[in-house]
Amino acid sequence: MNAIPSASAIRTVHVPLGERAYDILIGPGLIARAGAEIATRLKGRKAAVITDENVAPLYLKALVASLDEAGIASAEVVLPAGEKTKSFEHLITACDKVLEARVERNDYVIALGGGVIGDLSGFAAGIVRRGVRFVQVPTSLLSQVDSSVGGKTGINSRHGKNLIGVFHQPDLVLADTDVLNSLSAREFRAGYAEVAKYGLIDKPDFFAWLEANWKAVFTGGSARIEAIAASCQAKADVVVADERENGQRALLNLGHTFGHALEAATAYDSSRLVHGEGVSIGMVLAHEFSARMNLASPDDARRVERHLKEVGLPTRMSDIPGDLPPAETLMDAIAQDKKVKSGKLTFILTRGVGQSFVADDVPASEVISFLREKHA
Amino acid sequence: MNAIPSASAIRTVHVPLGERAYDILIGPGLIARAGAEIATRLKGRKAAVITDENVAPLYLKALVASLDEAGIASAEVVLPAGEKTKSFEHLITACDKVLEARVERNDYVIALGGGVIGDLSGFAAGIVRRGVRFVQVPTSLLSQVDSSVGGKTGINSRHGKNLIGVFHQPDLVLADTDVLNSLSAREFRAGYAEVAKYGLIDKPDFFAWLEANWKAVFTGGSARIEAIAASCQAKADVVVADERENGQRALLNLGHTFGHALEAATAYDSSRLVHGEGVSIGMVLAHEFSARMNLASPDDARRVERHLKEVGLPTRMSDIPGDLPPAETLMDAIAQDKKVKSGKLTFILTRGVGQSFVADDVPASEVISFLREKHA
Repeated sequence: MNAIPSASAIRTVHVPLGERAYDILIGPGLIARAGAEIATRLKGRKAAVITDENVAPLYLKALVASLDEAGIASAEVVLPAGEKTKSFEHLITACDKVLEARVERNDYVIALGGGVIGDLSGFAAGIVRRGVRFVQVPTSLLSQVDSSVGGKTGINSRHGKNLIGVFHQPDLVLADTDVLNSLSAREFRAGYAEVAKYGLIDKPDFFAWLEANWKAVFTGGSARIEAIAASCQAKADVVVADERENGQRALLNLGHTFGHALEAATAYDSSRLVHGEGVSIGMVLAHEFSARMNLASPDDARRVERHLKEVGLPTRMSDIPGDLPPAETLMDAIAQDKKVKSGKLTFILTRGVGQSFVADDVPASEVISFLREKHA
Repeated sequence: MNAIPSASAIRTVHVPLGERAYDILIGPGLIARAGAEIATRLKGRKAAVITDENVAPLYLKALVASLDEAGIASAEVVLPAGEKTKSFEHLITACDKVLEARVERNDYVIALGGGVIGDLSGFAAGIVRRGVRFVQVPTSLLSQVDSSVGGKTGINSRHGKNLIGVFHQPDLVLADTDVLNSLSAREFRAGYAEVAKYGLIDKPDFFAWLEANWKAVFTGGSARIEAIAASCQAKADVVVADERENGQRALLNLGHTFGHALEAATAYDSSRLVHGEGVSIGMVLAHEFSARMNLASPDDARRVERHLKEVGLPTRMSDIPGDLPPAETLMDAIAQDKKVKSGKLTFILTRGVGQSFVADDVPASEVISFLREKHA
């Protein structure tokens, strides 16, 4: 392990949610500094660290040692890796271990892992003693720029993904950028799709910056920290404006309606498609569909596709290995995900790069025609 | 069933919690008016009604008919009666049925029952889709004056009662006073202990009014509605001042520390002691202990005991049928319920009738001596 870098390399994004305000720290060496960062900001002296079997061998020891050094006693909860862990079964285990560790309302649940661990741990933190403090230590690019910020927590139900959960904001997010070096190129790219998304939603300058600087972001160093900080800031802005998703927070779903349908169509088989890849294809489709609806220029769709392709992300349905079900099946998945009111759908569409908006009157018939064309 | 009374007999208590503000309606015939009251205030047109096997035969049909008449489609969820229903097992069933009924964020979970059903249903409402609307239709005096107001929801864990849950305020509480006529005298008295508690906390005039009017409250009619409305108002005042129990909300636990210890000591055997009876004895003990600590006059303790005894509530440990464990075991139960910091306990004590306060430095040694004396 490297020497602990000085705090000067650390970027801070503040999320001003009143009494639920918190900081996101982004930079190298934050796992080794975790105990100190927590202890200087918060009062609790006990923690339950929840992680998974993949992440535990890499970072759990270092995190626990850092907490220990800061006088924070911790219990360790290691769950199986993968989406199936977002279940009542594992939630019950997690809650039980948190109570066993005698974590009180000012003590911590600490999530060490990607989105699955973050969502499950945040939910446990939200319901044990009707809410204890929660610290996120995200270990994937996707969770650093997306799921660790904003307070959405939850598990899956047989009726669908993320249908059971609470809004429970973290008290601190520690995004250690060193851990990203252990990600596979494919995992990093998948997370990058969400980074690009923030540019496409309403930050055209950020998207242009990514087009010019993406290689430096993939290499690491200050450009990567810059990109993560900009992403967290973009997400924080949306969350602050609409914490409980009554309106504009839906913009964060750009590319996700098509993306989720493709994930469902590939039965969540990560060898074929992971979430960020679905979002990448979905964002291109959202821009193409907006062009087809005469809302945006086809040039914007081509520009978005060019960039995502350049970084190595899939951008077309035909990029997914294996056969896809027919357009009608994709449409069914979309209709299940969304409420269809008298043949109209709510969709995130765009007037061009960085000009997304929530459209709540998209004709289902247009979507199905579009999917048939694209699928052919 | 009686003809539906006019709205003029209905009392309204408003709970001003900003965007979580809601009304408590108190009076006769509210189950028959439920659909109309909900439909005029809220937008949802679907509901899952959660109730138990004891309450369902009495009121479920009338409630569902009333919803139906107001254009609100409802699914019925009937769970076993009793404290054991506050478990993850039944929570999972409830969540599943609510999702099956396609209840969206503006639709309702409706709790029809006592505290157990209210706590479990409110928790389900708080976590399905990260929160759907919640309507309480409390059917016991205890739940009408206490658990249906204030937003505490939850289930039990093997580590203790109510350790898993969320704060999720109802959108409307409909306290139908007609249903109280079906309660046994013992159940009504147990709920009355919580009514008296509000006087003892900080409303000496209300306690004096109860001393003068308790017979009319037990008989029914306007005095009963008055007492329930005053209780809901008192609870609402405390909740508004401290929604998430960071301080003064603890006053609502007057009598509950001793009470819980006695409930634990009788293994929650309701044939020996029910919650309100434990609170009755606990309130007398809290006043006696305050007198012993020279905080209050022994006359106040005698006055409190006189009134509770007059209405037929138990007031002494020796009133509980069967043997109690030794004082040391009661003390262990208290210490488990509370955090003991360097031999000091947090307790609700009093300077006299209507003058309760939160004391956070009560010597555990004084409590044990007191319990030994009382137990003898």
